[in-house]
Amino acid sequence: MSIRKAIWGEQLEAIEQNLSEVDPDLYGYIRDFAYEEVLAREGLDLKTRELLAITSLIALGAPKELATHLEGALRNGATEREIRETIIQSALFVGFPKALGAMKMFHATLRKLLSEER
Amino acid sequence: MSIRKAIWGEQLEAIEQNLSEVDPDLYGYIRDFAYEEVLAREGLDLKTRELLAITSLIALGAPKELATHLEGALRNGATEREIRETIIQSALFVGFPKALGAMKMFHATLRKLLSEER
Amino acid sequence: MSIRKAIWGEQLEAIEQNLSEVDPDLYGYIRDFAYEEVLAREGLDLKTRELLAITSLIALGAPKELATHLEGALRNGATEREIRETIIQSALFVGFPKALGAMKMFHATLRKLLSEER
Amino acid sequence: MSIRKAIWGEQLEAIEQNLSEVDPDLYGYIRDFAYEEVLAREGLDLKTRELLAITSLIALGAPKELATHLEGALRNGATEREIRETIIQSALFVGFPKALGAMKMFHATLRKLLSEER
Amino acid sequence: MSIRKAIWGEQLEAIEQNLSEVDPDLYGYIRDFAYEEVLAREGLDLKTRELLAITSLIALGAPKELATHLEGALRNGATEREIRETIIQSALFVGFPKALGAMKMFHATLRKLLSEER
Amino acid sequence: MSIRKAIWGEQLEAIEQNLSEVDPDLYGYIRDFAYEEVLAREGLDLKTRELLAITSLIALGAPKELATHLEGALRNGATEREIRETIIQSALFVGFPKALGAMKMFHATLRKLLSEER
Repeated sequence: MSIRKAIWGEQLEAIEQNLSEVDPDLYGYIRDFAYEEVLAREGLDLKTRELLAITSLIALGAPKELATHLEGALRNGATEREIRETIIQSALFVGFPKALGAMKMFHATLRKLLSEER
Repeated sequence: MSIRKAIWGEQLEAIEQNLSEVDPDLYGYIRDFAYEEVLAREGLDLKTRELLAITSLIALGAPKELATHLEGALRNGATEREIRETIIQSALFVGFPKALGAMKMFHATLRKLLSEER
Repeated sequence: MSIRKAIWGEQLEAIEQNLSEVDPDLYGYIRDFAYEEVLAREGLDLKTRELLAITSLIALGAPKELATHLEGALRNGATEREIRETIIQSALFVGFPKALGAMKMFHATLRKLLSEER
Repeated sequence: MSIRKAIWGEQLEAIEQNLSEVDPDLYGYIRDFAYEEVLAREGLDLKTRELLAITSLIALGAPKELATHLEGALRNGATEREIRETIIQSALFVGFPKALGAMKMFHATLRKLLSEER
Repeated sequence: MSIRKAIWGEQLEAIEQNLSEVDPDLYGYIRDFAYEEVLAREGLDLKTRELLAITSLIALGAPKELATHLEGALRNGATEREIRETIIQSALFVGFPKALGAMKMFHATLRKLLSEER
Repeated sequence: MSIRKAIWGEQLEAIEQNLSEVDPDLYGYIRDFAYEEVLAREGLDLKTRELLAITSLIALGAPKELATHLEGALRNGATEREIRETIIQSALFVGFPKALGAMKMFHATLRKLLSEER
């Protein structure tokens, strides 16, 4: 299974179509280099990789990509608790405002997923 | 065992004395809040917490603290490979220059540890 | 009076309820460590602390928290002029785009407060 | 012709009025120092200056100003291709999330300009 | 008295000569715009401006300029305690690593000043 | 000619050997993806690409890589004046401290190159 499928889940086609339209070359690099080469490397399981991605994105302040990898972490076996711990810990390194912003987004993500399940 | 002991190892006393001299109040918060409260939380093992710390510190560009947690990760069971993967992955999110700087520091850390072992 | 009451004013209960729902543990740290321990320290008056908070948040790019502390600064005796000077000065250190973004938010904050007074 | 006119085009008056209202002193510095002094310097043509501005703003994460200079670059002779290359290259230095966010904004800018032309 | 004299003290000539040699135009802007125009504005006393400068520079991670303004703050009436509080507070917003780095630099600055006094 | 040769010049072998030793996989990505794929793209000449790289690295605060691309810009036809303008302009977007740090490094680079020529 492709790494994009593992992380993006059922959103794969929608993301793929959107990004191809935005810029096919940049999407090509994201697909072939970022996802299917680097994130596909052995040596770290995908759950840990997604927790690391969340940590990078909290520091960076990239809300759209953070939302993608919060769902990606859940999809690859991270528990709600593990993701909350990841966010809380980041407050030590990058400050409370960025950690709080990420936690609000995770709260919204959980509510969205819950309402979809119903 | 305290979390500081687990992460700082035999450097605990030297770090403790240095930071107390720099500012006892700030060190008090680092000791009691950052290490013995937040990093000591359950829900994530210390190895994963150290890989997350490395990721935050690469994004932040804090070389001194990065060195501390590169050693801390090794001390808590992360393999050389897992740390290299953590650094390589961060290039996707925060760019190659910060990832390369971190990898150079890890290379220097490994050489230092090797020469101490001899 | 608690520091949160001094900074959040009549929004205390709404913020408290919202953050507790988002993550009670993270909110606990924000309440007990960030506000009631660190921001409550002596050695700097609360007005100066709020101008410093504004400066940190401009650099960080955290609009939601910036709005909170722009109101917090007014609530603790900072004049409109002092806050404008704080924002203008930050342009030197972190560039015009972040300073301008903060000034637009302050402009919106002042209009909101004015319309509430009516 | 003023540099603001060259970069802001027909939006000059609207931007000028908005920024003067937000803060006349800060706008005065943006007008007299940032635009009519620094960006007006010789030694680099305005097209190159706008590609550099885009690069700074991608790193900074300032979407409002990025939109202004994406249009400014087009207005001063940068081709769509040159702007796409500028954005793609920035992924190497500041990571894929910021580059992708900028490309989405450029995609939206192009669509807006196209619909205005009709 | 010029603002540069007030902040740089007896180092004025050395700094002026060094920066003029590095780039006379950039130094001209730093002198005429940053110091003698913006930092010279009324509406905030110079002590507060220097505490704000320290806060911006901690967030930014610019050690050389931080050292300049740590001394500048002392020169303009900030107490050691006020500067320590400024640094400690910044840990909440930008994380412990940057605050600790700044405190180490302040510790070194105080020792240097003490040894010069002898 | 490879893009690495064009940017690194006679330092190619030294950089290649050093980076391969630091981490062959990360170096592989820098070589094959960053340099020989992305920086090698058509649509922007290499001189402009190097001025953009300098701008990204000033924002990022990566001094080692900045030094590499300051020399790389000179090697690909950028004049001293164009590089000074690139650095001065960045002060508007990311503040004076980062621009001044970059200009000091460029000053040192020019002196080093001058002394090597003798």
